[in-house]
Amino acid sequence: MQLESSTRLERLNSALADAGYEAYVATQRPNQLYFVPHPEPVSGLPPIPFLVFLPGRVIAIPGPLFYYACRDQLTNCEVVAAPLGGPAPIESLVTLLAGLGVRRVAFDQLSSAYATTLRQQLPTVACAEESRLGPTLRRTKEPGELAILRTVAGFADLGIEAAFHAARPGATNRDVAAAATAAMLSAGCEEAGLQVVSGPGVAYMGTGNWVLDPRRTLQAGDMLLVDMGILYHGYLGDQTRTAIVGEGTPIQHEIIATVQEAYRLTRDAMRPGANTRELYQITVDHLAAKGWRDYFPHHISHGLGLGGDLPAVNATSEDRLQIGDTLSCEPGVYLPGIGGARFENMLHITADGAEELTHTPINPRVG
Amino acid sequence: MQLESSTRLERLNSALADAGYEAYVATQRPNQLYFVPHPEPVSGLPPIPFLVFLPGRVIAIPGPLFYYACRDQLTNCEVVAAPLGGPAPIESLVTLLAGLGVRRVAFDQLSSAYATTLRQQLPTVACAEESRLGPTLRRTKEPGELAILRTVAGFADLGIEAAFHAARPGATNRDVAAAATAAMLSAGCEEAGLQVVSGPGVAYMGTGNWVLDPRRTLQAGDMLLVDMGILYHGYLGDQTRTAIVGEGTPIQHEIIATVQEAYRLTRDAMRPGANTRELYQITVDHLAAKGWRDYFPHHISHGLGLGGDLPAVNATSEDRLQIGDTLSCEPGVYLPGIGGARFENMLHITADGAEELTHTPINPRVG
Repeated sequence: MQLESSTRLERLNSALADAGYEAYVATQRPNQLYFVPHPEPVSGLPPIPFLVFLPGRVIAIPGPLFYYACRDQLTNCEVVAAPLGGPAPIESLVTLLAGLGVRRVAFDQLSSAYATTLRQQLPTVACAEESRLGPTLRRTKEPGELAILRTVAGFADLGIEAAFHAARPGATNRDVAAAATAAMLSAGCEEAGLQVVSGPGVAYMGTGNWVLDPRRTLQAGDMLLVDMGILYHGYLGDQTRTAIVGEGTPIQHEIIATVQEAYRLTRDAMRPGANTRELYQITVDHLAAKGWRDYFPHHISHGLGLGGDLPAVNATSEDRLQIGDTLSCEPGVYLPGIGGARFENMLHITADGAEELTHTPINPRVG
Repeated sequence: MQLESSTRLERLNSALADAGYEAYVATQRPNQLYFVPHPEPVSGLPPIPFLVFLPGRVIAIPGPLFYYACRDQLTNCEVVAAPLGGPAPIESLVTLLAGLGVRRVAFDQLSSAYATTLRQQLPTVACAEESRLGPTLRRTKEPGELAILRTVAGFADLGIEAAFHAARPGATNRDVAAAATAAMLSAGCEEAGLQVVSGPGVAYMGTGNWVLDPRRTLQAGDMLLVDMGILYHGYLGDQTRTAIVGEGTPIQHEIIATVQEAYRLTRDAMRPGANTRELYQITVDHLAAKGWRDYFPHHISHGLGLGGDLPAVNATSEDRLQIGDTLSCEPGVYLPGIGGARFENMLHITADGAEELTHTPINPRVG
C-alpha cells in the first residue's frame, strides 16, 4: 500500500509558505506519522522528539535510546547523531535551527519550557505553536487512508461480534474483553484496547486503555456496554454497542431505543456543510425531550485518523463537515441506578451524506 | 483477596503527621489505587482528579463524566457532587480545603498552574509536592500484593511461552504479539501490551504500548526480542527474552551469552543493603569489557508495583535495596547492524537475596 507522502510534503510546504513559515517542527506522533517520507504507513515509527520539515529536507532529531533505530529506518530523512552522553534533543534542535538560518518556525506543540529555551538561545528566531496546521492538512482522507480505515472498521466489527458472543451470565467483563481482543489481534489488528462496562444500571463511563471493573461477573438483567480503541497502520478504529443480558426491563429497552434514535437522527444530519454545534444539539434535544439531558456528559463525535483529528463536534466547535471527513457518531445516556447505553459507528462523509464504515448490527446478539 | 487498606491509611496519616501535614491530595493513579479504602484491589477505579486523605476521612472530587461512577462505587469515601455544568474539580478542591481549615497540604504531584491557583485562592494554606511520599509507603510489598505479583509473573511466563511458540520464519512481529496477548488475556490478565522487535541486527529499542514494525516478517537469522507491560489488579508484570530464529552467527550467540551473564552478575548482587548505583555499574562494567558500553542506553531495573515504584536503580540513584522490594533486572545491549538482546525477570528481595518471580527458561524455544 502506497500513501501519498510526496503530495503531503508539497501541501505542508505550501501551507507553511502561505503562513510565512520557513520550517515545521512535528513533535506529535500523528503529525510525524503523516508527514514522514516512507514507502508505507509506518505505525512502528521509533519515538522522535523533533522531526523538522523544510522545503526539500526532512531532519529527524532522536534521543540516544532510539538513535540507531532512526538512523537505520528513516532512510529518506537526515538523522542527527545522538550518542549516549551527547547533547539533549532540544540542544540539537537549537544548533540545527541556528545553522539553518531560519527566522520563523511553526511547531505542532510548543511547551512553555521549550519556548523559553528557544527564545533565550535563538533570540532572532520566532517560534510559534500552530496546533491546527497538521490536523487541517490531515483532515480529508486519501483513498489509501480510507482503505485502511475500512480495514480497521472491519476489525472493530469482529471485536464487537466476539465480545457479545462471549457475554453471558457467569462471564466476567474481562472474559468479554479478552475474547474481543484476541479475535481482533489474531485477525491482523495491531493494537486493541477494550472498554467493557456492565451492571443493572450502567451509569458508568469508561476511559483510556483500561477495563472498568474487570472482575465483575455478568448477570441476567445487566446492561453491557462494549467500546474500543484499536489501531491498524496507526489509524484508530472505534465502535460501541450496548445490549441487555437477558430480558431486561421496560426502562432499559427505552434507554436503548432512545439512544439508537439519537444516533440515527444525528447520523442523518451528518452531511457536507453541516454545522457541528447543531449536530451535537440534535442529540441533546432528543435526550432532553425525555428529561435526560443531564445524563449525556460527553461529546457526540470526534474525527478519525492518526489521532487528534478534525472535525471537532461539540457544543462550541466552529467546524463544518466536509466531503472526505471521517468521524464517529456516538450518543449515549447513563441514568444512575437505572441503566445506560452508548451506540457508536465510524462514518465517512460523502456528497450523499454519512456512509457507515462499521457494520455490526445495532442490536448485537448476546451469547 | 483482602488488602491492608486500614493499615495503609494509618501509615499514611502517621507519615503526614511526622512531616507536619494535615492532608494528602493524591492525583496519581498508583497512589489513589493504593490508599483508596476498598475491600479488594480495584484496578477499575474511575478517574478521580483529586482524592483527599485526612485522619478518619477520605474525600473524592470527581469530574462530571465519572461523578455517578464514583458516587456508587466509592462507598467508603465521601464523594463531592459534580453535576454537569458545575464547578471544575480544582474549584471544588479550593472550596473543600477552605472549609476544612487545613494549613499544610501535601500533593503527590502539583502542577505549577494548580500551585498558582491554590496560592491565589487559599493564601493561608501551604501546598507542597511530596512526590516520594506515596512510593515510599508503597515500597515494601504486603503478602497480598506479593501474591498478586506472583500471579502476574505467571501471566508473563505464559505470554513469553506463547510468543516464542508463535515465532517462526514467515510469521510477523504482529503474529507473535497477538499470540502472546491472547494467551495472557484468556488466562486472566487484565491488560497486555507487547513489544516485539526482530531483525538480523536488533539494534532497536521499543517503548510504550506499541509494537515496533508490526508487519515485519521473521526470517532465519533474525534476533527476536519480546518485552511486555501487563496488568493484573493494577500491578505491573514485565519480562523480556531474546532468541535467535534459526542457527545464528557467532557474534549473535556472543551477544546473548554476554547479556545473560550481565543479568546473572547483577541479579546475584541484588541483596538487602545493595547500593543501586553499584548494581547499575555491574552491567556497565561487564559490557564495557567487551567494548560495548555505548550500546547499553537504558536503566538496569525499576521498582514493580502499581506504577512509579521504588527503588530507583540507575547511574545516579541514592536508593539501597530492602527486604520486601520488588523490581526488575533487565540488562541489554544493541549493536547497530549486528544484533541486540535484553533479558529481564521480575525479582523479590528477601533476606537471602533476589528471588525470581518469573520463571520462563532463559533460552526460550523458538517455534
